[in-house]
Amino acid sequence: MPIPDEKIFPHATGAAAKTVEQHQDPQELVFYAGWFCPFVQRTWIALEERGIPYQYKEVNPYKKEKHFLDINPKGLVPAIEYKGKALYESIILCEFLEDAYPNYKPKLLPEDPFERAYARIWLDYISKSIIPANFRLIQAQTPEKQQEALADFNKALKQFAEKIKGPYFLGEQFSLVDIAIVPWIVRDYIIAENRGFKREDIGSKWVEYASKLEKRDSVARTSSEHYAEIYGRYLRDEAQSEAAKATRAGRDIP
Amino acid sequence: MPIPDEKIFPHATGAAAKTVEQHQDPQELVFYAGWFCPFVQRTWIALEERGIPYQYKEVNPYKKEKHFLDINPKGLVPAIEYKGKALYESIILCEFLEDAYPNYKPKLLPEDPFERAYARIWLDYISKSIIPANFRLIQAQTPEKQQEALADFNKALKQFAEKIKGPYFLGEQFSLVDIAIVPWIVRDYIIAENRGFKREDIGSKWVEYASKLEKRDSVARTSSEHYAEIYGRYLRDEAQSEAAKATRAGRDIP
Repeated sequence: MPIPDEKIFPHATGAAAKTVEQHQDPQELVFYAGWFCPFVQRTWIALEERGIPYQYKEVNPYKKEKHFLDINPKGLVPAIEYKGKALYESIILCEFLEDAYPNYKPKLLPEDPFERAYARIWLDYISKSIIPANFRLIQAQTPEKQQEALADFNKALKQFAEKIKGPYFLGEQFSLVDIAIVPWIVRDYIIAENRGFKREDIGSKWVEYASKLEKRDSVARTSSEHYAEIYGRYLRDEAQSEAAKATRAGRDIP
Repeated sequence: MPIPDEKIFPHATGAAAKTVEQHQDPQELVFYAGWFCPFVQRTWIALEERGIPYQYKEVNPYKKEKHFLDINPKGLVPAIEYKGKALYESIILCEFLEDAYPNYKPKLLPEDPFERAYARIWLDYISKSIIPANFRLIQAQTPEKQQEALADFNKALKQFAEKIKGPYFLGEQFSLVDIAIVPWIVRDYIIAENRGFKREDIGSKWVEYASKLEKRDSVARTSSEHYAEIYGRYLRDEAQSEAAKATRAGRDIP
Protein backbone atom coordinates (compact mmCIF):
# COMPACT_ATOMS: atom_id res chain seq x y z
CA MET A 1 0.00 0.00 0.00
CA PRO A 2 1.47 3.37 -0.91
CA ILE A 3 2.07 5.44 2.19
CA PRO A 4 0.19 8.71 1.75
CA ASP A 5 2.93 10.74 3.44
CA GLU A 6 5.41 9.66 0.79
CA LYS A 7 4.72 12.56 -1.51
CA ILE A 8 5.16 15.34 1.00
CA PHE A 9 6.55 18.68 -0.13
CA PRO A 10 10.11 17.57 -0.77
CA HIS A 11 12.33 20.34 0.61
CA ALA A 12 12.62 23.40 2.81
CA THR A 13 11.38 26.74 1.50
CA GLY A 14 11.84 30.38 2.46
CA ALA A 15 14.57 31.24 4.95
CA ALA A 16 15.13 27.58 5.84
CA ALA A 17 16.00 26.75 2.21
CA LYS A 18 18.86 29.25 2.37
CA THR A 19 20.12 27.73 5.62
CA VAL A 20 20.03 24.26 4.07
CA GLU A 21 22.02 25.56 1.09
CA GLN A 22 24.69 27.00 3.40
CA HIS A 23 25.18 23.64 5.13
CA GLN A 24 25.94 21.21 2.33
CA ASP A 25 29.69 20.82 2.86
CA PRO A 26 30.92 17.69 4.65
CA GLN A 27 31.43 18.18 8.40
CA GLU A 28 32.29 15.99 11.39
CA LEU A 29 28.66 16.40 12.46
CA VAL A 30 25.97 15.30 10.00
CA PHE A 31 22.45 16.47 10.81
CA TYR A 32 19.72 14.19 9.44
CA ALA A 33 16.59 16.27 9.14
CA GLY A 34 13.10 16.57 7.76
CA TRP A 35 12.53 20.23 6.95
CA PHE A 36 8.86 20.12 8.05
CA CYS A 37 9.28 18.28 11.36
CA PRO A 38 8.88 20.34 14.55
CA PHE A 39 11.11 17.93 16.50
CA VAL A 40 13.83 18.39 13.87
CA GLN A 41 13.50 22.14 14.13
CA ARG A 42 14.39 22.00 17.84
CA THR A 43 17.81 20.50 17.18
CA TRP A 44 18.28 22.66 14.12
CA ILE A 45 17.69 25.82 16.18
CA ALA A 46 20.25 24.66 18.76
CA LEU A 47 22.83 24.12 15.98
CA GLU A 48 22.14 27.53 14.43
CA GLU A 49 21.90 29.34 17.75
CA ARG A 50 25.34 28.16 18.80
CA GLY A 51 27.07 28.31 15.41
CA ILE A 52 28.11 24.65 15.47
CA PRO A 53 29.43 23.44 12.08
CA TYR A 54 27.14 20.80 10.58
CA GLN A 55 26.19 19.21 7.28
CA TYR A 56 22.42 19.21 6.61
CA LYS A 57 20.98 16.06 5.05
CA GLU A 58 17.30 15.89 4.14
CA VAL A 59 15.74 12.50 4.93
CA ASN A 60 12.36 11.54 3.61
CA PRO A 61 11.19 9.55 6.64
CA TYR A 62 9.00 7.40 4.41
CA LYS A 63 11.83 6.55 1.99
CA LYS A 64 14.91 6.07 4.11
CA GLU A 65 18.32 5.55 2.57
CA LYS A 66 20.54 2.62 3.41
CA HIS A 67 23.43 4.45 5.11
CA PHE A 68 20.98 6.33 7.32
CA LEU A 69 19.26 3.12 8.42
CA ASP A 70 22.62 1.40 8.92
CA ILE A 71 23.70 3.91 11.55
CA ASN A 72 20.19 4.62 12.89
CA PRO A 73 18.08 1.44 12.59
CA LYS A 74 14.89 3.03 13.91
CA GLY A 75 15.23 5.63 11.19
CA LEU A 76 13.98 8.50 13.36
CA VAL A 77 14.71 12.13 12.60
CA PRO A 78 16.16 14.30 13.93
CA ALA A 79 19.35 12.28 14.15
CA ILE A 80 23.00 13.15 14.03
CA GLU A 81 26.01 11.21 12.88
CA TYR A 82 29.05 12.04 14.93
CA LYS A 83 32.32 10.25 14.26
CA GLY A 84 30.41 7.48 12.46
CA LYS A 85 27.87 6.82 15.23
CA ALA A 86 24.24 7.94 15.41
CA LEU A 87 22.20 9.63 18.12
CA TYR A 88 18.54 10.68 18.03
CA GLU A 89 15.72 12.29 20.08
CA SER A 90 15.47 16.06 19.68
CA ILE A 91 16.10 17.22 23.25
CA ILE A 92 18.75 14.57 23.90
CA LEU A 93 20.53 15.85 20.79
CA CYS A 94 20.38 19.43 22.10
CA GLU A 95 21.85 18.29 25.41
CA PHE A 96 24.52 16.33 23.54
CA LEU A 97 25.49 19.49 21.65
CA GLU A 98 25.86 21.28 25.01
CA ASP A 99 28.20 18.57 26.28
CA ALA A 100 30.16 17.92 23.08
CA TYR A 101 30.62 21.58 22.09
CA PRO A 102 31.18 23.33 25.42
CA ASN A 103 33.01 26.29 23.86
CA TYR A 104 30.21 27.32 21.52
CA LYS A 105 27.98 30.05 22.93
CA PRO A 106 25.33 30.62 24.12
CA LYS A 107 24.86 27.66 26.42
CA LEU A 108 21.22 26.64 26.32
CA LEU A 109 20.84 25.23 29.84
CA PRO A 110 21.54 27.26 32.99
CA GLU A 111 24.80 26.48 34.80
CA ASP A 112 23.20 26.56 38.25
CA PRO A 113 22.08 23.00 39.21
CA PHE A 114 18.73 24.13 40.64
CA GLU A 115 17.90 26.32 37.63
CA ARG A 116 18.98 23.53 35.30
CA ALA A 117 16.65 21.06 37.02
CA TYR A 118 13.86 23.64 36.91
CA ALA A 119 14.39 23.97 33.14
CA ARG A 120 14.24 20.18 32.81
CA ILE A 121 10.91 20.07 34.67
CA TRP A 122 9.42 22.41 32.08
CA LEU A 123 11.02 20.56 29.16
CA ASP A 124 9.31 17.49 30.55
CA TYR A 125 6.03 19.39 30.83
CA ILE A 126 6.20 20.44 27.17
CA SER A 127 6.84 16.82 26.10
CA LYS A 128 4.21 15.23 28.29
CA SER A 129 1.44 17.83 28.34
CA ILE A 130 1.67 20.39 25.55
CA ILE A 131 2.83 18.36 22.54
CA PRO A 132 0.42 15.42 22.98
CA ALA A 133 -2.46 17.89 23.45
CA ASN A 134 -1.38 19.65 20.24
CA PHE A 135 -1.37 16.39 18.26
CA ARG A 136 -4.78 15.44 19.67
CA LEU A 137 -6.15 18.84 18.67
CA ILE A 138 -4.86 18.61 15.12
CA GLN A 139 -6.05 15.03 14.64
CA ALA A 140 -9.49 15.52 16.25
CA GLN A 141 -12.21 15.00 13.61
CA THR A 142 -15.66 15.86 15.01
CA PRO A 143 -16.58 19.39 16.16
CA GLU A 144 -17.18 18.07 19.72
CA LYS A 145 -13.77 16.39 19.89
CA GLN A 146 -12.11 19.43 18.38
CA GLN A 147 -13.68 21.70 20.97
CA GLU A 148 -12.67 19.40 23.82
CA ALA A 149 -9.13 19.07 22.44
CA LEU A 150 -8.83 22.84 22.04
CA ALA A 151 -9.86 23.37 25.66
CA ASP A 152 -7.28 20.79 26.81
CA PHE A 153 -4.54 22.33 24.68
CA ASN A 154 -5.33 25.86 25.86
CA LYS A 155 -5.32 24.71 29.47
CA ALA A 156 -1.91 23.03 29.10
CA LEU A 157 -0.51 26.10 27.36
CA LYS A 158 -1.89 28.51 29.97
CA GLN A 159 -0.18 26.60 32.77
CA PHE A 160 3.10 27.01 30.90
CA ALA A 161 2.44 30.66 30.02
CA GLU A 162 1.88 31.55 33.68
CA LYS A 163 5.48 30.62 34.39
CA ILE A 164 7.11 32.73 31.65
CA LYS A 165 9.50 35.08 33.42
CA GLY A 166 9.99 37.18 30.29
CA PRO A 167 11.25 37.95 27.78
CA TYR A 168 12.18 34.23 27.63
CA PHE A 169 10.75 31.40 29.69
CA LEU A 170 13.61 31.41 32.19
CA GLY A 171 14.09 35.19 32.09
CA GLU A 172 16.88 36.98 30.23
CA GLN A 173 18.48 33.78 28.97
CA PHE A 174 17.13 32.13 25.80
CA SER A 175 17.14 28.41 26.64
CA LEU A 176 16.24 24.87 25.65
CA VAL A 177 12.78 25.45 27.14
CA ASP A 178 12.11 28.11 24.48
CA ILE A 179 13.59 25.85 21.80
CA ALA A 180 11.38 22.95 22.86
CA ILE A 181 8.15 24.92 22.40
CA VAL A 182 8.88 27.31 19.52
CA PRO A 183 8.38 24.91 16.57
CA TRP A 184 4.75 24.61 17.66
CA ILE A 185 4.48 28.40 17.85
CA VAL A 186 5.85 28.75 14.32
CA ARG A 187 3.18 26.30 13.13
CA ASP A 188 0.25 27.56 15.20
CA TYR A 189 -1.37 29.28 12.20
CA ILE A 190 -2.46 25.77 11.19
CA ILE A 191 -4.56 25.33 14.34
CA ALA A 192 -5.65 28.97 14.14
CA GLU A 193 -7.02 28.41 10.64
CA ASN A 194 -8.45 24.93 11.21
CA ARG A 195 -9.22 24.46 14.91
CA GLY A 196 -10.14 27.86 16.28
CA PHE A 197 -6.93 28.43 18.23
CA LYS A 198 -6.16 32.04 19.20
CA ARG A 199 -2.96 33.17 20.89
CA GLU A 200 -5.03 35.86 22.63
CA ASP A 201 -7.03 33.16 24.42
CA ILE A 202 -3.85 32.13 26.25
CA GLY A 203 -3.24 35.70 27.43
CA SER A 204 -1.17 38.76 26.60
CA LYS A 205 1.98 37.27 28.15
CA TRP A 206 1.74 34.40 25.69
CA VAL A 207 1.09 36.68 22.70
CA GLU A 208 4.22 38.66 23.51
CA TYR A 209 6.36 35.59 24.18
CA ALA A 210 5.24 33.77 21.01
CA SER A 211 5.86 36.82 18.86
CA LYS A 212 9.32 37.39 20.35
CA LEU A 213 10.33 33.75 19.89
CA GLU A 214 9.22 33.32 16.28
CA LYS A 215 11.24 36.39 15.27
CA ARG A 216 14.45 35.13 16.83
CA ASP A 217 17.16 34.71 14.20
CA SER A 218 17.83 30.99 14.73
CA VAL A 219 14.09 30.30 14.61
CA ALA A 220 13.43 32.35 11.48
CA ARG A 221 16.44 30.77 9.73
CA THR A 222 15.03 27.25 10.29
CA SER A 223 11.41 28.02 9.38
CA SER A 224 9.82 27.11 6.04
CA GLU A 225 6.87 28.63 4.21
CA HIS A 226 4.92 25.50 3.30
CA TYR A 227 3.85 23.71 6.47
CA ALA A 228 0.16 23.71 5.56
CA GLU A 229 0.56 21.01 2.84
CA ILE A 230 2.08 18.65 5.39
CA TYR A 231 -0.54 19.31 8.01
CA GLY A 232 -3.43 18.50 5.68
CA ARG A 233 -2.87 14.81 6.41
CA TYR A 234 -2.81 15.43 10.14
CA LEU A 235 -5.93 17.58 9.99
CA ARG A 236 -7.76 14.75 8.18
CA ASP A 237 -6.17 12.27 10.64
CA GLU A 238 -4.55 10.36 7.76
CA ALA A 239 -0.91 10.98 8.69
CA GLN A 240 1.31 7.91 9.04
CA SER A 241 4.15 9.34 11.13
CA GLU A 242 4.92 7.56 14.41
CA ALA A 243 3.59 10.53 16.38
CA ALA A 244 0.36 10.58 14.37
CA LYS A 245 -0.21 6.84 14.75
CA ALA A 246 0.51 6.93 18.49
CA THR A 247 -1.93 9.82 18.96
CA ARG A 248 -4.62 7.95 17.02
CA ALA A 249 -4.12 4.86 19.19
CA GLY A 250 -4.22 6.90 22.43
CA ARG A 251 -0.60 5.99 23.15
CA ASP A 252 2.49 8.02 24.14
CA ILE A 253 4.30 9.79 21.33
CA PRO A 254 7.47 7.71 20.84
CA MET B 1 -15.83 9.98 48.59
CA PRO B 2 -13.03 8.35 50.56
CA ILE B 3 -10.02 7.69 48.37
CA PRO B 4 -9.28 3.96 48.59
CA ASP B 5 -5.53 4.47 48.44
CA GLU B 6 -5.65 6.48 51.63
CA LYS B 7 -5.19 3.49 53.90
CA ILE B 8 -2.08 2.08 52.26
CA PHE B 9 0.51 0.30 54.39
CA PRO B 10 1.86 3.34 56.20
CA HIS B 11 5.64 2.94 56.27
CA ALA B 12 8.69 1.19 54.89
CA THR B 13 9.52 -2.29 56.10
CA GLY B 14 12.55 -4.58 55.97
CA ALA B 15 15.90 -3.06 54.95
CA ALA B 16 14.24 0.17 53.80
CA ALA B 17 12.81 0.78 57.31
CA LYS B 18 16.35 0.77 58.72
CA THR B 19 17.49 3.24 56.04
CA VAL B 20 14.56 5.55 56.85
CA GLU B 21 15.51 5.40 60.55
CA GLN B 22 19.10 6.40 59.75
CA HIS B 23 17.95 9.50 57.84
CA GLN B 24 15.76 11.36 60.30
CA ASP B 25 18.16 14.17 61.26
CA PRO B 26 17.65 17.57 59.63
CA GLN B 27 19.79 18.14 56.54
CA GLU B 28 20.13 20.79 53.84
CA LEU B 29 18.46 18.30 51.48
CA VAL B 30 15.01 17.01 52.46
CA PHE B 31 13.81 13.97 50.51
CA TYR B 32 10.00 13.69 50.29
CA ALA B 33 9.18 10.08 49.63
CA GLY B 34 6.55 7.39 49.53
CA TRP B 35 8.25 4.15 50.61
CA PHE B 36 6.24 2.04 48.12
CA CYS B 37 6.63 4.19 45.02
CA PRO B 38 8.98 2.90 42.30
CA PHE B 39 9.66 6.45 41.07
CA VAL B 40 10.65 7.46 44.60
CA GLN B 41 12.99 4.48 44.82
CA ARG B 42 14.96 5.75 41.82
CA THR B 43 15.93 8.98 43.54
CA TRP B 44 16.41 7.17 46.84
CA ILE B 45 18.90 4.75 45.23
CA ALA B 46 20.84 7.69 43.75
CA LEU B 47 21.06 9.32 47.20
CA GLU B 48 22.19 6.09 48.86
CA GLU B 49 24.54 5.09 46.04
CA ARG B 50 26.44 8.37 46.28
CA GLY B 51 26.28 8.84 50.06
CA ILE B 52 24.63 12.27 49.85
CA PRO B 53 23.35 13.48 53.26
CA TYR B 54 19.55 13.74 53.27
CA GLN B 55 16.59 13.80 55.61
CA TYR B 56 13.88 11.27 54.72
CA LYS B 57 10.28 12.45 55.05
CA GLU B 58 7.42 10.05 54.38
CA VAL B 59 4.54 11.69 52.50
CA ASN B 60 1.19 10.02 52.19
CA PRO B 61 0.37 11.22 48.67
CA TYR B 62 -3.34 11.04 49.48
CA LYS B 63 -3.02 13.11 52.66
CA LYS B 64 -0.49 15.80 51.89
CA GLU B 65 0.78 18.16 54.55
CA LYS B 66 0.66 21.93 54.23
CA HIS B 67 4.40 22.69 54.14
CA PHE B 68 4.90 20.05 51.46
CA LEU B 69 2.14 21.50 49.28
CA ASP B 70 3.42 25.03 49.91
CA ILE B 71 6.79 24.27 48.35
CA ASN B 72 5.51 21.69 45.84
CA PRO B 73 1.96 22.66 44.79
CA LYS B 74 1.44 19.61 42.57
CA GLY B 75 2.24 17.46 45.57
CA LEU B 76 4.15 14.86 43.57
CA VAL B 77 6.67 12.49 45.11
CA PRO B 78 9.56 12.01 44.84
CA ALA B 79 10.41 15.62 45.60
CA ILE B 80 13.31 17.32 47.30
CA GLU B 81 13.54 20.52 49.23
CA TYR B 82 16.89 22.18 48.72
CA LYS B 83 17.58 25.53 50.37
CA GLY B 84 13.83 26.09 50.79
CA LYS B 85 12.87 25.37 47.18
CA ALA B 86 11.30 22.22 45.73
CA LEU B 87 12.14 20.06 42.74
CA TYR B 88 10.40 16.90 41.51
CA GLU B 89 10.43 14.19 38.78
CA SER B 90 12.55 11.15 39.64
CA ILE B 91 15.14 11.24 36.85
CA ILE B 92 15.40 15.05 36.91
CA LEU B 93 16.14 14.76 40.63
CA CYS B 94 18.88 12.19 39.97
CA GLU B 95 20.44 14.51 37.38
CA PHE B 96 20.15 17.40 39.83
CA LEU B 97 22.06 15.38 42.42
CA GLU B 98 24.81 14.80 39.82
CA ASP B 99 25.08 18.54 39.18
CA ALA B 100 24.65 19.79 42.75
CA TYR B 101 26.94 17.21 44.41
CA PRO B 102 29.76 16.78 41.89
CA ASN B 103 32.23 15.51 44.50
CA TYR B 104 30.14 12.56 45.66
CA LYS B 105 31.04 9.32 43.92
CA PRO B 106 30.16 7.35 41.87
CA LYS B 107 28.85 9.62 39.14
CA LEU B 108 25.78 8.03 37.61
CA LEU B 109 26.03 9.37 34.05
CA PRO B 110 29.06 8.80 31.81
CA GLU B 111 31.41 11.77 31.35
CA ASP B 112 31.80 11.22 27.61
CA PRO B 113 29.16 13.30 25.75
CA PHE B 114 28.27 10.53 23.30
CA GLU B 115 27.95 7.88 26.03
CA ARG B 116 25.92 10.30 28.11
CA ALA B 117 23.49 10.90 25.25
CA TYR B 118 23.31 7.15 24.64
CA ALA B 119 22.36 6.66 28.30
CA ARG B 120 19.66 9.34 27.95
CA ILE B 121 18.18 7.55 24.91
CA TRP B 122 17.69 4.45 27.03
CA LEU B 123 16.37 6.41 30.00
CA ASP B 124 13.82 7.81 27.60
CA TYR B 125 13.03 4.32 26.32
CA ILE B 126 12.36 3.08 29.85
CA SER B 127 10.00 6.01 30.52
CA LYS B 128 8.14 5.84 27.24
CA SER B 129 8.04 2.12 26.49
CA ILE B 130 8.73 -0.08 29.50
CA ILE B 131 6.96 1.72 32.37
CA PRO B 132 3.68 2.43 30.54
CA ALA B 133 3.59 -1.22 29.35
CA ASN B 134 4.15 -2.32 32.95
CA PHE B 135 1.25 -0.19 34.23
CA ARG B 136 -1.01 -1.47 31.44
CA LEU B 137 -0.10 -5.05 32.32
CA ILE B 138 -0.84 -4.60 36.02
CA GLN B 139 -4.11 -2.79 35.41
CA ALA B 140 -5.40 -5.12 32.65
CA GLN B 141 -8.55 -6.89 33.86
CA THR B 142 -9.69 -9.54 31.34
CA PRO B 143 -7.54 -12.62 30.49
CA GLU B 144 -7.35 -11.46 26.85
CA LYS B 145 -6.15 -7.98 27.78
CA GLN B 146 -3.70 -9.41 30.29
CA GLN B 147 -2.22 -11.71 27.67
CA GLU B 148 -1.92 -8.90 25.15
CA ALA B 149 -0.38 -6.57 27.75
CA LEU B 150 2.10 -9.24 28.84
CA ALA B 151 3.22 -9.75 25.23
CA ASP B 152 3.69 -5.96 24.84
CA PHE B 153 5.60 -5.68 28.10
CA ASN B 154 7.86 -8.63 27.28
CA LYS B 155 8.57 -7.21 23.84
CA ALA B 156 9.54 -3.82 25.28
CA LEU B 157 11.74 -5.47 27.89
CA LYS B 158 13.46 -7.74 25.36
CA GLN B 159 14.45 -4.79 23.22
CA PHE B 160 16.10 -3.27 26.28
CA ALA B 161 17.66 -6.55 27.39
CA GLU B 162 19.35 -7.02 24.01
CA LYS B 163 21.37 -3.87 24.66
CA ILE B 164 22.69 -4.82 28.11
CA LYS B 165 26.49 -4.76 27.85
CA GLY B 166 26.86 -6.47 31.23
CA PRO B 167 27.20 -6.65 34.09
CA TYR B 168 25.35 -3.29 34.01
CA PHE B 169 23.42 -1.78 31.13
CA LEU B 170 26.29 0.46 30.01
CA GLY B 171 28.99 -2.08 30.90
CA GLU B 172 31.20 -1.90 33.98
CA GLN B 173 29.67 1.34 35.24
CA PHE B 174 26.47 1.20 37.31
CA SER B 175 24.41 4.10 35.98
CA LEU B 176 21.14 6.01 35.95
CA VAL B 177 19.85 3.58 33.32
CA ASP B 178 20.08 0.75 35.86
CA ILE B 179 18.51 2.97 38.52
CA ALA B 180 15.62 3.87 36.22
CA ILE B 181 14.61 0.24 35.66
CA VAL B 182 15.48 -1.53 38.91
CA PRO B 183 12.42 -0.52 41.00
CA TRP B 184 10.29 -2.47 38.52
CA ILE B 185 12.66 -5.44 38.84
CA VAL B 186 12.36 -5.36 42.63
CA ARG B 187 8.56 -5.45 42.25
CA ASP B 188 8.31 -7.96 39.40
CA TYR B 189 7.17 -10.76 41.72
CA ILE B 190 3.78 -9.01 41.66
CA ILE B 191 3.39 -9.54 37.90
CA ALA B 192 4.96 -13.00 38.22
CA GLU B 193 2.30 -14.01 40.76
CA ASN B 194 -0.64 -12.26 39.10
CA ARG B 195 0.02 -11.83 35.38
CA GLY B 196 2.19 -14.77 34.31
CA PHE B 197 5.42 -12.80 33.91
CA LYS B 198 8.64 -14.85 33.94
CA ARG B 199 12.13 -13.34 33.87
CA GLU B 200 13.23 -16.41 31.90
CA ASP B 201 10.90 -15.42 29.06
CA ILE B 202 13.03 -12.30 28.50
CA GLY B 203 16.19 -14.38 28.25
CA SER B 204 19.19 -15.47 30.31
CA LYS B 205 20.89 -12.09 29.93
CA TRP B 206 17.90 -10.46 31.60
CA VAL B 207 17.75 -13.06 34.40
CA GLU B 208 21.39 -12.40 35.24
CA TYR B 209 21.06 -8.61 35.01
CA ALA B 210 17.89 -8.48 37.14
CA SER B 211 19.41 -10.69 39.81
CA LYS B 212 22.62 -8.64 39.93
CA LEU B 213 20.71 -5.34 40.17
CA GLU B 214 18.29 -6.32 42.93
CA LYS B 215 21.17 -7.45 45.13
CA ARG B 216 23.08 -4.19 44.81
CA ASP B 217 23.51 -2.54 48.19
CA SER B 218 21.75 0.77 47.39
CA VAL B 219 18.83 -1.15 45.90
CA ALA B 220 18.47 -3.59 48.79
CA ARG B 221 18.70 -0.74 51.34
CA THR B 222 15.74 1.06 49.71
CA SER B 223 13.52 -2.00 49.20
CA SER B 224 10.57 -2.87 51.44
CA GLU B 225 8.92 -6.20 52.15
CA HIS B 226 5.26 -5.27 51.67
CA TYR B 227 4.68 -4.13 48.11
CA ALA B 228 1.91 -6.66 47.45
CA GLU B 229 -0.65 -4.82 49.65
CA ILE B 230 -0.16 -1.67 47.57
CA TYR B 231 -0.40 -3.42 44.26
CA GLY B 232 -3.73 -5.06 45.07
CA ARG B 233 -5.49 -1.84 44.07
CA TYR B 234 -3.55 -1.67 40.81
CA LEU B 235 -4.25 -5.32 40.05
CA ARG B 236 -7.98 -4.67 40.50
CA ASP B 237 -7.56 -1.41 38.53
CA GLU B 238 -8.90 0.60 41.48
CA ALA B 239 -5.77 2.65 42.21
CA GLN B 240 -6.18 6.43 42.31
CA SER B 241 -2.57 7.53 41.77
CA GLU B 242 -1.91 9.87 38.85
CA ALA B 243 -0.05 7.09 36.98
CA ALA B 244 -2.93 4.65 37.52
CA LYS B 245 -5.56 7.14 36.38
CA ALA B 246 -3.55 8.11 33.30
CA THR B 247 -3.08 4.46 32.35
CA ARG B 248 -6.81 3.81 32.75
CA ALA B 249 -7.61 6.77 30.48
CA GLY B 250 -5.07 5.70 27.84
CA ARG B 251 -3.01 8.82 28.50
CA ASP B 252 0.69 9.45 29.16
CA ILE B 253 1.88 8.88 32.71
CA PRO B 254 2.40 12.40 34.08
